[in-house]
Amino acid sequence: MPPLITFLTDYGTREPYAGEVKGVIRAICPQAEVIDLTHQVPPGDVHAGAFLLGMVWRSFPPGTVHLAVVDPGVGTARLPIVLATPEALFVGPDNGLFTYVLRPFLPPMGKDVHPFLAPVRLPLPSGISAYALTEARWFRHPVSRTFHGRDIFGPCAGWLANGKPPHEFGPPVADLVCLWVPEPVWEQGVLEGVVLHIDRFGNLLTSVHAGHLEGVDPQAVLVEVGGLCWQGLAGAYAEGEWTAHVESHGWLEIARRGASAGEALGVKVGSPVRLRLTGR
Amino acid sequence: MPPLITFLTDYGTREPYAGEVKGVIRAICPQAEVIDLTHQVPPGDVHAGAFLLGMVWRSFPPGTVHLAVVDPGVGTARLPIVLATPEALFVGPDNGLFTYVLRPFLPPMGKDVHPFLAPVRLPLPSGISAYALTEARWFRHPVSRTFHGRDIFGPCAGWLANGKPPHEFGPPVADLVCLWVPEPVWEQGVLEGVVLHIDRFGNLLTSVHAGHLEGVDPQAVLVEVGGLCWQGLAGAYAEGEWTAHVESHGWLEIARRGASAGEALGVKVGSPVRLRLTGR
Amino acid sequence: MPPLITFLTDYGTREPYAGEVKGVIRAICPQAEVIDLTHQVPPGDVHAGAFLLGMVWRSFPPGTVHLAVVDPGVGTARLPIVLATPEALFVGPDNGLFTYVLRPFLPPMGKDVHPFLAPVRLPLPSGISAYALTEARWFRHPVSRTFHGRDIFGPCAGWLANGKPPHEFGPPVADLVCLWVPEPVWEQGVLEGVVLHIDRFGNLLTSVHAGHLEGVDPQAVLVEVGGLCWQGLAGAYAEGEWTAHVESHGWLEIARRGASAGEALGVKVGSPVRLRLTGR
Repeated sequence: MPPLITFLTDYGTREPYAGEVKGVIRAICPQAEVIDLTHQVPPGDVHAGAFLLGMVWRSFPPGTVHLAVVDPGVGTARLPIVLATPEALFVGPDNGLFTYVLRPFLPPMGKDVHPFLAPVRLPLPSGISAYALTEARWFRHPVSRTFHGRDIFGPCAGWLANGKPPHEFGPPVADLVCLWVPEPVWEQGVLEGVVLHIDRFGNLLTSVHAGHLEGVDPQAVLVEVGGLCWQGLAGAYAEGEWTAHVESHGWLEIARRGASAGEALGVKVGSPVRLRLTGR
Repeated sequence: MPPLITFLTDYGTREPYAGEVKGVIRAICPQAEVIDLTHQVPPGDVHAGAFLLGMVWRSFPPGTVHLAVVDPGVGTARLPIVLATPEALFVGPDNGLFTYVLRPFLPPMGKDVHPFLAPVRLPLPSGISAYALTEARWFRHPVSRTFHGRDIFGPCAGWLANGKPPHEFGPPVADLVCLWVPEPVWEQGVLEGVVLHIDRFGNLLTSVHAGHLEGVDPQAVLVEVGGLCWQGLAGAYAEGEWTAHVESHGWLEIARRGASAGEALGVKVGSPVRLRLTGR
Repeated sequence: MPPLITFLTDYGTREPYAGEVKGVIRAICPQAEVIDLTHQVPPGDVHAGAFLLGMVWRSFPPGTVHLAVVDPGVGTARLPIVLATPEALFVGPDNGLFTYVLRPFLPPMGKDVHPFLAPVRLPLPSGISAYALTEARWFRHPVSRTFHGRDIFGPCAGWLANGKPPHEFGPPVADLVCLWVPEPVWEQGVLEGVVLHIDRFGNLLTSVHAGHLEGVDPQAVLVEVGGLCWQGLAGAYAEGEWTAHVESHGWLEIARRGASAGEALGVKVGSPVRLRLTGR
């Protein structure tokens, strides 16, 4: 199978920046296929990029190179890195963009340890390795100060797709920046999560996931969000009704079919979502 | 020629849902090329998706697999289907999304039989076959309740691109949902059509098409739309003027070069457009 | 290396027009890869398309075919052309869309010779050739009056990607339309340029470029734009500060990290930007 690169940025689609990076990759690895994830991460919103990448990367074949550039710190001291998990490679800035890739491998993040989304340097979990991208011979030259997607990240993704091993790009790094997203925990029959993302349809994706709901009777749960509450978890969307259901990536989703839950509830990323065990 | 898949959805481009489906297809049929038609069909607007697909599918090589997912009924009883015409294959939900693909093969839809855009179950025209997608071995597992593009439609499109014949996906179906769009008919020198789509430029695409204008003197027609009227059909756009002309897919288009006809006329999908035969 | 085509238009991404052109190209040159630059050039804004194409085409491998269609004059007398430089081929309408491709080869444009962005017919510089696309056998038929991207430009790009030489498409042309963009010149310690583009981040790209700043002490320059002024050129973005720095394509960029310079300064394309030599 020819090599595969996915590509996620905040470059937008009005300017040809993403296309330009593809041109650079193509000169390095002509046989690679590049699949766009999105280029419409809100400008500089590292958490949004991290969440979206974390959501979908597992649907790609093993060995895929995931190129992700949401890089408000371009030109500053933040490291460009390659991250190697047993299943895939990730290239981008060390600013928290790989938070949700690392999350399943990390100890659960506690509730009051750091503020929500605070960037925290955490040691790499076992089985995961990472390297700084410092070997300039794999870069495009001259390296600009403002477009590392084209000059560093893109070219390195191309060379990785060509089969060059991660350790040839620079020295290993022992810890990476992650954004602090507390893992919800059931306490006295209450699970408190937060909204992590509001999608194009206005659906809310929350930090509650399928794992929290194992063994829970779906009808014996009260859902509280944005000043509303209702009884019961659903299996999917339902016409004209508020639903909370586990969506296709395992997150608990709050939705109202045909309407924007985000607008209707006036919530945003970080707003609380509570599940409360009740009788039926 | 390697297999070709086109891809049309209402997923938007902010989230990586379309990219995720491509990752799933790629694992099934690595040699397939996927060409995006659009992912910006308004959320849940089956008719808009149907119109856009119907507009362009004939420009693709024979044997192309057209994957279309505008699926407000995901998780309900609507069938996932594959539709086979002599020229191409179509994969998506049976909710009217293939209305304009089937339209040339169907008897003309009458004016007052059903409301505009009403979903109506019609028998398959001869020469066209369709099958329900029920053979779960071609799906991605576990099949979610909310993302059949990734779990059912995308994988089946991948297997079809691999050459698997449509009848292996499930039992034949004898009728399909179509949206009711009356075929304009000349009556006493008047042809009444409707606006079917308003495009990015604000141009109006109408249910009047080239076939209605055969043998008609272009200068002997009065065009009436949105409270305006003018004499004569044009051959193309004209600077600073209202024009009605047959556009590149055969539809009668109402436009004003450099301006949005849709905004200027205050019309929407379903608004009437009339042609009236006059003297020159 | 299989042939490469880049693709830039003002078609938008709501309708499948760009995808349709790709379908036509694919039937002609199945092995070509098409990389989208952007399809969101503002409708009919030839200068914006020209600027964006000029910005990035050099990042693609030699021999790339650049297909560009921003064509408000479709259906009028403007010529469809192919332009051949030593490095690449360009296909599109002769309306100024290749202004920034030709600019480095042309004599500098003077300040008060023509109004800003006026279309001016200029003789082809030496080493560059161009041909009218008149040989209808390379077109898609029937040729519509309103969609030459699909019927003329796209097919010709496909045949060029197939290796057909430019001179087989029609007669040579001796001059091409360029949009008049005066080249800034230092006069009495002042360099006056203009804003050429405002990007997705609100950053301003100006007609001042790296060449104007050779030998200039970055700290001895006063930047004046939109009623603001500050001392010194920067090397890159800086947190919470206005910066003027040479960006990754060589243009002087005005930016404020995390904010939209365009909105904050109330400037638009054509607004003046001045550099003034001062003491340190």
